[in-house]
Amino acid sequence: MSDLVNKIAGANEEAVRRMLAADPVLIDVIPANEAIPELKPGMILHAGPPVDWERMCGPMRGAIAGIAVFEGWADDLADAEAKAAAGAFDFHPNHHFSAVGPMTGMTTISQPVMVVENRTFGNRAYCTINEGLGKVMRFGGNDAEVLDRLRWLRDGLGPAIGAALREMGGVPLKAVVARGLTMGDEMHQRNVGCSGLMLRAISPALARTAADTQELARALAFIGGNDQFFLNIAMALGKAMMDPVRDIEGSTVVTAMSRNGTDFGIRVSGTGDQWFTAPVEMPEGLYFPGYTDADANPDMGDSTIVETIGLGGFAMAAAPAVAGFVGAGSASEAANFTHAMAEIALGENPEWTIPALDYQGVPTGIDVRLVVETGVAPTINTGIAHREPGVGQVGAGVVKAPLGCFEQALVALAERMGVA
Amino acid sequence: MSDLVNKIAGANEEAVRRMLAADPVLIDVIPANEAIPELKPGMILHAGPPVDWERMCGPMRGAIAGIAVFEGWADDLADAEAKAAAGAFDFHPNHHFSAVGPMTGMTTISQPVMVVENRTFGNRAYCTINEGLGKVMRFGGNDAEVLDRLRWLRDGLGPAIGAALREMGGVPLKAVVARGLTMGDEMHQRNVGCSGLMLRAISPALARTAADTQELARALAFIGGNDQFFLNIAMALGKAMMDPVRDIEGSTVVTAMSRNGTDFGIRVSGTGDQWFTAPVEMPEGLYFPGYTDADANPDMGDSTIVETIGLGGFAMAAAPAVAGFVGAGSASEAANFTHAMAEIALGENPEWTIPALDYQGVPTGIDVRLVVETGVAPTINTGIAHREPGVGQVGAGVVKAPLGCFEQALVALAERMGVA
Repeated sequence: MSDLVNKIAGANEEAVRRMLAADPVLIDVIPANEAIPELKPGMILHAGPPVDWERMCGPMRGAIAGIAVFEGWADDLADAEAKAAAGAFDFHPNHHFSAVGPMTGMTTISQPVMVVENRTFGNRAYCTINEGLGKVMRFGGNDAEVLDRLRWLRDGLGPAIGAALREMGGVPLKAVVARGLTMGDEMHQRNVGCSGLMLRAISPALARTAADTQELARALAFIGGNDQFFLNIAMALGKAMMDPVRDIEGSTVVTAMSRNGTDFGIRVSGTGDQWFTAPVEMPEGLYFPGYTDADANPDMGDSTIVETIGLGGFAMAAAPAVAGFVGAGSASEAANFTHAMAEIALGENPEWTIPALDYQGVPTGIDVRLVVETGVAPTINTGIAHREPGVGQVGAGVVKAPLGCFEQALVALAERMGVA
Repeated sequence: MSDLVNKIAGANEEAVRRMLAADPVLIDVIPANEAIPELKPGMILHAGPPVDWERMCGPMRGAIAGIAVFEGWADDLADAEAKAAAGAFDFHPNHHFSAVGPMTGMTTISQPVMVVENRTFGNRAYCTINEGLGKVMRFGGNDAEVLDRLRWLRDGLGPAIGAALREMGGVPLKAVVARGLTMGDEMHQRNVGCSGLMLRAISPALARTAADTQELARALAFIGGNDQFFLNIAMALGKAMMDPVRDIEGSTVVTAMSRNGTDFGIRVSGTGDQWFTAPVEMPEGLYFPGYTDADANPDMGDSTIVETIGLGGFAMAAAPAVAGFVGAGSASEAANFTHAMAEIALGENPEWTIPALDYQGVPTGIDVRLVVETGVAPTINTGIAHREPGVGQVGAGVVKAPLGCFEQALVALAERMGVA
């Protein structure tokens, strides 16, 4: 048995080593079908583990209908829904194509995606550009305002940011996150610090490559007006950081956590690309005026990749203002979340530290064994979507990853190692 | 005696009311002699209470020589020093002209000044644009690099920011500071959050009013490359907030704290524009590589106006990363500074709150009586200049306001009220 323990320890050491060795750099914005050549017309990538139309939740159905109209695959929302129900579209998880997407997580051929390259390992990860707040597709919005914004992201902002990033040679992201942790960000429900740092980093190159100052002004106003602009960058960073950690034989480290609004799924290094799923839970949180938990959709999105790398709920101590925003108790109690998450992590990240904890690093390397042994589930800071298509965000809260995923993963790992 | 106590209480209530009612808005950047018509050739405003050439410290003499060359009042630094010693220049405190300046605090006719208007009371305050780090005039730098940068601030950046602010109608600053306090800023030695927020606020207007994208790119890079860009804005905000608090009969509230590198001076509401001075103290802090406390100049600058309004050392709990930077102990002890400053303040600011203290407001309204009674001196987070002219910043630290100023002020107040 001690051989097995040693093997797991060595595998996990290698997993954490790869996480800490990551060097993620935001290098470009390009159309999704350039980034992911497998993307074809009619193919829609979504958040979370695999799910078919019949089991999709309301906001994801709303987003599917909207993106089909946006891509010209349907005449209107009703036509799109009919086609979806008739099997006209091909659904796959973002995670199967080096991509991630927030909430509904729509990724299709013509959308612009940000490209994060992990320079240590040479892999790339992709995420669309954050749409801002209000009625947006990631929360199931699909009306003309939503689609018009997506068109401008595709034709205006995306190419502009891409040109700026190419001109300046990219933005190394590890230092941005390190700084954000000293600015009250946890990179999931609060990205105000990092969003400002990104604008500071790219705005000179945006100006140098701009053809027109009015369009430039619109781009600067859009980026500067969106406190969550960095979220999607942090997600692509997370995906680029975790993909090289996959497939280490014997490793019990979680490489992905993700939800599609119906199921919560995790992947573990030692079991490769297998998903372990359980019904997704309902966030507990605070609602925008006029909404209650009766309006809420269960938890959704690939954004849990940020918790997978030790941010979000794991870094709550860095972001006392978030604790109140997500209804997780008083600000002075924020550190308790980080301390709890340290119990299920193998180590800490010496480059991503939290001043208020005297520079303790964020908990790094979620170990499925520790989750199952302690019964402490990963804490996730999340936005809450309305359960009906087309409405949008109704609040923000905290949700626990279902323990069932971790129990299944542990059984599968044991079987794989011949001890079950 | 209780009549007197009541009178003081009422006066101080009014003082704090005026502080909290302030509505400071950054509205423009204009040449100093437009902002301050009294400014004439040969006239130099400096930080702190009045001081003549003979008693000026090294870095302030260096800055005087540099600014005289910059303005064309001297052929070179040696000529400028000779003229200064011969009485060719007319020295006055910034504070006598609605202005403030960091460290040496040079303000002369052609420099661009940022204009903060307190919309509640109609008064305006002025401060030059922050020059960035490295060799800069505020730390006594005066070589060609320093003067070239000042020329670009005058001819390029200043007019560009002014045009942007006029086009967009200004930036209300109270909300920027409120947000900065949730981003790890205390607005004296750390302004990284607020500097990013300012760039987000003004960059669209900078683009809309730009004539040339390359010059715009330079402006964006300069602002975005300076973590202390907001310091000078916070200082003008502080001056605009405190000037309406002057001259309330019977009030024991401190309206200004300031240092010229030789003397520390304070002004108190109930004694109008009288300065109470004492020899300035030496900061205790951390030094850049290659420097020690033997290189340090005593404390200097008008930047203590930010402590006067409850920020800087008073808001240390909001900025745990600063505690280490200024050598004030571990990050987790940052809250102790804010708790101590609350002992000498009359109230707290309900709009400027600190998440880590469960949204306690910053200590507001320094009462000279409380300072003298408790012996707790205001704590100031400060940069440290080299004591020789022309060198620049050598570190950052914490310094205490000398108690003697407060004792003198209390005696003067007592005399004025007929009880001494």
